[in-house]
Amino acid sequence: MQAEFKDRLKGNAEAVEGVLDALLAPERLPGEIARPERLMAAMQHATLAGGKRLRPFLVIETARLFGTEGEGVLRAGAALECVHCYSLVHDDLPAMDDDDLRRGKPTVHKAFDEATAILVGDALLTLAFDVLGEEATAASAETRIALVTSLARASGIGGMVGGQLLDLSAEGRFTAEGHPLALDESDILRLQAMKTGALLSAAVEMGAILGDADGDERRALAAYGRALGQAFQIADDILDAEGDAATMGKAVGKDMAKGKGTLVQLWGLDVARGRLGDLVAQAEAALEMFGERAGILRAAARFVAERQS
Amino acid sequence: MQAEFKDRLKGNAEAVEGVLDALLAPERLPGEIARPERLMAAMQHATLAGGKRLRPFLVIETARLFGTEGEGVLRAGAALECVHCYSLVHDDLPAMDDDDLRRGKPTVHKAFDEATAILVGDALLTLAFDVLGEEATAASAETRIALVTSLARASGIGGMVGGQLLDLSAEGRFTAEGHPLALDESDILRLQAMKTGALLSAAVEMGAILGDADGDERRALAAYGRALGQAFQIADDILDAEGDAATMGKAVGKDMAKGKGTLVQLWGLDVARGRLGDLVAQAEAALEMFGERAGILRAAARFVAERQS
Repeated sequence: MQAEFKDRLKGNAEAVEGVLDALLAPERLPGEIARPERLMAAMQHATLAGGKRLRPFLVIETARLFGTEGEGVLRAGAALECVHCYSLVHDDLPAMDDDDLRRGKPTVHKAFDEATAILVGDALLTLAFDVLGEEATAASAETRIALVTSLARASGIGGMVGGQLLDLSAEGRFTAEGHPLALDESDILRLQAMKTGALLSAAVEMGAILGDADGDERRALAAYGRALGQAFQIADDILDAEGDAATMGKAVGKDMAKGKGTLVQLWGLDVARGRLGDLVAQAEAALEMFGERAGILRAAARFVAERQS
Repeated sequence: MQAEFKDRLKGNAEAVEGVLDALLAPERLPGEIARPERLMAAMQHATLAGGKRLRPFLVIETARLFGTEGEGVLRAGAALECVHCYSLVHDDLPAMDDDDLRRGKPTVHKAFDEATAILVGDALLTLAFDVLGEEATAASAETRIALVTSLARASGIGGMVGGQLLDLSAEGRFTAEGHPLALDESDILRLQAMKTGALLSAAVEMGAILGDADGDERRALAAYGRALGQAFQIADDILDAEGDAATMGKAVGKDMAKGKGTLVQLWGLDVARGRLGDLVAQAEAALEMFGERAGILRAAARFVAERQS
C-alpha cells in the first residue's frame, strides 16, 4: 500500500499542478480587465515550486471514497493549495518569519520583492474562492457554497490566520519584553490545531462535501482529519528538533531557537514519538466504517507521521 | 434629493457598521477554534474607523431598486466593505505605500505592527467570503455563489489586486532605474478601472444579484457602475491635485509627487473637470429604465464627483 500511496501522491500532485498551471495562464477570465505579467510570474513561483500537495491529495482521495473524481475535485484541491501557498508567501515575509528559502528556492519576496509578495498572497487567496465558485468545480451551487464556507472557516480568524497570530504571540512579538511566552500543552495544541490542523481538516471535509458524504461519514472523516492534523504537527516538531536542513529544504531548529514552546520541548522526543504513533492509530481507526476502500487514506496518515521532510 | 441622499448614506453606513461590529464580536462561529483578541481588536481598528461606506451603500441601494432589503443585503455590503478595508490595510504597509495615517488615525501597522497588519488583511478578505457563503446573506445558494464570484473576480488578479500591482509598476518600483513609467491615457484608464473601478462596479453588480435583476437591468447597472467608477477616480485625482490634507484625512499630492501619471496631469484640471461632468451624465443616463426609483443612485453619482474627501 505504501508504494501505491506514493504513486497516487505523485499522480495527484501532477494533476493538481496541471490545474494550477491552467488557472495561472495569461488568458483572462470573463470580468477580468487584464492579468499583469509580473503578478502571474510571481504567483507561478509561489505555487509551482513543487511540494507534496498533501492537502489536494486529501481532497481527492476523500472524494474518491465516494466515487467522486475528475476535474471538479482537482479544482477544489487546487483552490485549497492556493490558500496553503498564499499562507507560506505571507508567512515568509520579513515582518513575519523572515525566511529567504522555501523548498530550497528563494521565497517570493526574495525572488521578486516584498510588495509583490504581499499582492501574490492576496491574489492567491482571492483566486481560491473564485475557483470554488465556478460551475466547473461542482454542478450544484449548494456544493460550491459548502466548499467556500469550509475553506473560509478553516483559513480565517478561528483557523489558520488566527493560528499564525497566536504563533507570533507565542514568540513574544507583541509584548514590550519580547520574551517567548510559556505555553502549556493546551495552548500549544490549540495554536497548532488552528495554524496547521484546520486546513488539513478542511481538505478532508471538502472531499466529503464533494463526495456528498452523510452525517456519520462526515463525523468519521472529521475525526480522521483532526488526528491527521495533530500527527502532522507533531511530526513537524520532531523534524524541527532533529531534521537536517538539506532534507527539509528550509531552515530547521528555528522554532526551538526562537524558544517557542513545541510539543517536543514539553514532552521530550520519546513521548512525542509515542503520541505520534497513537495519533496514526486513531486516524486509521476513524476510517473503520469505510473498510478496504480507505486504505489509501490510512497510508496517508502513516506517511504524515514518517515523512522526512 | 441631495439631502435625502446624505441621510441615506449615513443610515446605511450605520446599519453596515452594526453588521461589521457583530461579525467581529468575540463569539466564535461554528468551526472556529478560537478568536485571538489582538486579531479582533486590529480588525476592528481596520473596519470601524469610519469612512463613507460608499460600496455597501451601492449594494444596498441597487438591491432596493428591486425591492430587496434587510439583513442579507447589509451582510453582502459588509462583506464588500471587508475587502475594501483589507486592501487599505495592505496598501498602507511600509513595503507598499508606507502610510502612517488613514482617515486621520494611525494605520493598522502603526497602531499595532506589520505582522498583525498583514494578518488583519488576510483575515478580512477571508471573512468576506465566509459572510457571503452563509444562508443569512441569501436563502438561495445560487445567489450566494454569484455574490462570491462577483466579489472574487473584481478583487483578484484581473481586478483590484492586479490594479495595485500595475500601480506599483507605474511608480517604477520594479525597474532597476526606479523612474516612474510614462503611461498613456489607456494605460491609466485600465489601471484605474482595475484598482478602484472593479470593486465599485462589483458593489452595483452585487446589488443587482441580490435584487435578481434581469439581463437588461444588469447591463444598464453595469454601465452605471463603470461610469461611476471612472468618475470616482477622476474626482480622486482632482482632489489629490488640489485637496488639502486636513479635509482628506491623509497625505495629498502624493500621487503627483511620485510622478505617477494621473489623468489630471495628462489632461489638466479643466479637461479633467469636464470629463468628470460627462461621466456623471453617463451614469445618470444609464439608469433611465428605472425612472424615479433610481433617484438615489443618480444622487450617488453626483456625490462621487463633488465630494471634498
